Amino acid sequence: MSSKTKNGSAISPTRIENYPEWYQQVIKAADLAENSPVRGCMTIKPWGYALWENMQRVLDDAFKATGHKNAAFPLLIPMHYMEKEAEHIEGFAKECAVVTHTRLATDEKGKLVPASPLEEPYIIRPTSEMIIGEAFSRWIQSYRDLPMLINQWANVMRWEMRTRLFLRTSEFYWQEGHTAHATAKEAEEETLTILDLYARFAEDYLAIPVFKGEKTASERFPGAVNTYCIEAMMQDKKALQAGTSHFLGQNFSRALNIKYLSAESKEEFAWTTSWGVSTRLIGGLIMTHSDDDGLILPPKIAPLHIAILPMIHKEEQRAAIYEYCDALKAALQKISYHDKNIQVEIDRRELTGGEKSWSWVKKGVPIRIEIGGKELEKNTVFVGRRDHAYKERNAQNRDEFLATLTLQLDDIQKNLLQRATAFQQENTFKLDAHADFYNLFNETSGGFVLAHWNGDPTIENKIKEELNVTIRCIPMTKDPEPGQCIFTGEKSVQRVIFARAY
Amino acid sequence: MSSKTKNGSAISPTRIENYPEWYQQVIKAADLAENSPVRGCMTIKPWGYALWENMQRVLDDAFKATGHKNAAFPLLIPMHYMEKEAEHIEGFAKECAVVTHTRLATDEKGKLVPASPLEEPYIIRPTSEMIIGEAFSRWIQSYRDLPMLINQWANVMRWEMRTRLFLRTSEFYWQEGHTAHATAKEAEEETLTILDLYARFAEDYLAIPVFKGEKTASERFPGAVNTYCIEAMMQDKKALQAGTSHFLGQNFSRALNIKYLSAESKEEFAWTTSWGVSTRLIGGLIMTHSDDDGLILPPKIAPLHIAILPMIHKEEQRAAIYEYCDALKAALQKISYHDKNIQVEIDRRELTGGEKSWSWVKKGVPIRIEIGGKELEKNTVFVGRRDHAYKERNAQNRDEFLATLTLQLDDIQKNLLQRATAFQQENTFKLDAHADFYNLFNETSGGFVLAHWNGDPTIENKIKEELNVTIRCIPMTKDPEPGQCIFTGEKSVQRVIFARAY
Repeated sequence: MSSKTKNGSAISPTRIENYPEWYQQVIKAADLAENSPVRGCMTIKPWGYALWENMQRVLDDAFKATGHKNAAFPLLIPMHYMEKEAEHIEGFAKECAVVTHTRLATDEKGKLVPASPLEEPYIIRPTSEMIIGEAFSRWIQSYRDLPMLINQWANVMRWEMRTRLFLRTSEFYWQEGHTAHATAKEAEEETLTILDLYARFAEDYLAIPVFKGEKTASERFPGAVNTYCIEAMMQDKKALQAGTSHFLGQNFSRALNIKYLSAESKEEFAWTTSWGVSTRLIGGLIMTHSDDDGLILPPKIAPLHIAILPMIHKEEQRAAIYEYCDALKAALQKISYHDKNIQVEIDRRELTGGEKSWSWVKKGVPIRIEIGGKELEKNTVFVGRRDHAYKERNAQNRDEFLATLTLQLDDIQKNLLQRATAFQQENTFKLDAHADFYNLFNETSGGFVLAHWNGDPTIENKIKEELNVTIRCIPMTKDPEPGQCIFTGEKSVQRVIFARAY
Repeated sequence: MSSKTKNGSAISPTRIENYPEWYQQVIKAADLAENSPVRGCMTIKPWGYALWENMQRVLDDAFKATGHKNAAFPLLIPMHYMEKEAEHIEGFAKECAVVTHTRLATDEKGKLVPASPLEEPYIIRPTSEMIIGEAFSRWIQSYRDLPMLINQWANVMRWEMRTRLFLRTSEFYWQEGHTAHATAKEAEEETLTILDLYARFAEDYLAIPVFKGEKTASERFPGAVNTYCIEAMMQDKKALQAGTSHFLGQNFSRALNIKYLSAESKEEFAWTTSWGVSTRLIGGLIMTHSDDDGLILPPKIAPLHIAILPMIHKEEQRAAIYEYCDALKAALQKISYHDKNIQVEIDRRELTGGEKSWSWVKKGVPIRIEIGGKELEKNTVFVGRRDHAYKERNAQNRDEFLATLTLQLDDIQKNLLQRATAFQQENTFKLDAHADFYNLFNETSGGFVLAHWNGDPTIENKIKEELNVTIRCIPMTKDPEPGQCIFTGEKSVQRVIFARAY
């Protein structure tokens, strides 16, 4: 095929040859995003942004259905705000973009230089606990104002040294929920409600199975009492933290003076939470499903469900084929699929059949339909499913295809989740011997390890230094199985998950 | 009524007493937004943000229906990019937030200070022609890549000295469309297509009548060949520029090297456009419709169409009234209104009837429904329309109300547009005498003046200095009526619109 490489796959290198480079090439081939001229910042191109918009729509509806309201807080944070919470500033000071001037002037050589220095610099928000907390301290007066359930869709900036498209960029896009409650219990419930919401979104929409769990102290959000997360396994068996939900206790309330008058007229500090998912999810989506032919999109999140590809071999057939395609498109657009109509596009570009077809393979569109002379003759559609091998394309009766389309899409969605779940399970190991643990990470391609740990951060550090392996989470389980720490033989309450991570 | 001021209106001061302060108080009473601790930057609160989200949804659908795709470009722009287009830097250099450092450190006194200076500073985008143009120069290779139709929803920053919520803030939210075309004609058509789209949106959704026109040279976007705009009249008779659409010619293509290979294999510079509307529209909405009792929202853009207000005078009626309200809400939510369902909320707060009712008046909800014992008894609803005086509330049979609700909402929508149109027309004057012009702006409350002008910018400057009046636009008209300049007696091609402006 014209768009395939010499090794028979559309993406070069393949996953096995060079996984990080394969990832970059999948993004490029699907035209999702690119590095910008601003160090570490990406440009999200239309195909990638449409994916993000679909994620936003689903999440935003879910946030609103659970009583959250959107608002918008300033991009900038006065520098001294960052001093209010010691762990918070410790966590973010090293990677802040700092605004120090408010004007450009021209120097004697005619070059632009910053001018009008600020009395107090601002930082571009790396996260908004400080600026939203300040607002909460004024908005919340009495228990009647609680719970306060706010979300913001925003760009944030952390000046990262080593960046990778979607996974780690200096500027990224996310939603950050910030809530305040009258009791610790309510705030903890909120934290876990959102964690569940994230996990369901990952599985039901992105077809990414996740482990839900709590972070160890060393991996907590700076200033949090508890950080919960969802962790997904990528195809290189590394973990990706795909979303976090933080119970902040009264730490930020005390730092920012978020107080309320209780029903008993007592002044109390509120209990707060914060939680977020980001454009990193797009990276996770790519690395969970894509293959050596490029991106694979779950139908429920795909910007386009179907690409119709007219295949014109004889010029005199063009008009009839286009007409057939137009009618097919119109019929498809009337079909409803998970709260919206089927999204379909006809690709009339003047390309060879192979180029045309492979371009949509690489973009991950769930279903491709080729229409040529034969299809018109037999009233069929020639269907390629992106979750199947390219050669498994098959002819389907047009009306049957229309009647079964949503089932076929659901089948693709289910298939992707099953594949990812099987992969995750095959590569998750319960280990009880120290040597097996080291062997797995030193001698094999790794995976997730469920092992006992004594709770000591020095052990965590040692493993990190020796193997670059971290505890991804203490999984949530109804039946914690106690045991002995695999490293020290000491008592352990339950198994935790170890992995290499992004 | 408990929430009214001594002069009988819910907002103090009234429009006549102090228009600018009335505006601030309407925003405060409706809880739309507030000034943040970051100089000149606002926090948009949930009620205000919901308005913006509704505007976004309608506009975004319209952009997509006309072939535009969303993308996301970096927040920061390398400083030297701003040197590429002379007028552009001239226009924006004086109000740039400049990022110069990428870390915070602690000085010897334990205070935070900026650290790790950048080799080249970045500015926070005041607009994105430069950074998007750079991408276009790489994305566009051949005529097949054209037209390139991109939009971005983003925050931008211009360090304004005198700010006012929504109307002029240092950080604001907008959409910026950026397109590239093969010919000047196509680019000009795009510019005007978008201008029409903006004008229709303003009239059909915001119920704001606008004049469409072209800016004079002195009011053009820095670097544009032509700037087109929509201009609305506020209730103080000042003009608000509510949206702009720029034909950029080849200025930015030449500055940024946006070239394409034509069908004839000739290298050509592309023709580009840019266009935007911002959160300023919320300011325009407030100042067009609101009255001395607060905000008035057009139903097609209101976050909430109906507030149901249970009025509990006897505790034993509470359960029955709540049940009636719940059933009413359920019935209302099934009704579809302009592509979405009726949005309705029951206000169960423990407030007096007056407080409860006036709080929704001030928030501008199109329809309030009071439900007390009498309504249950008679199967009625007691309806207050926000576009009518408070005392005009009336009882309607419940089923008739449900059956006619969408008509009543459309009637409110129409009424608001008619009122605003009548006001605009009553305060737009064709003047042909120099003295009348000065008299209007010196001795009366002003308005829009359609007058002849010789096209000379020095006249424009003189008027601006003497009266603080500017040419808002050269209106688009099929039948330009030639005449004599009101200031010089020289020839004029057509009348232009003069006004004081925000």
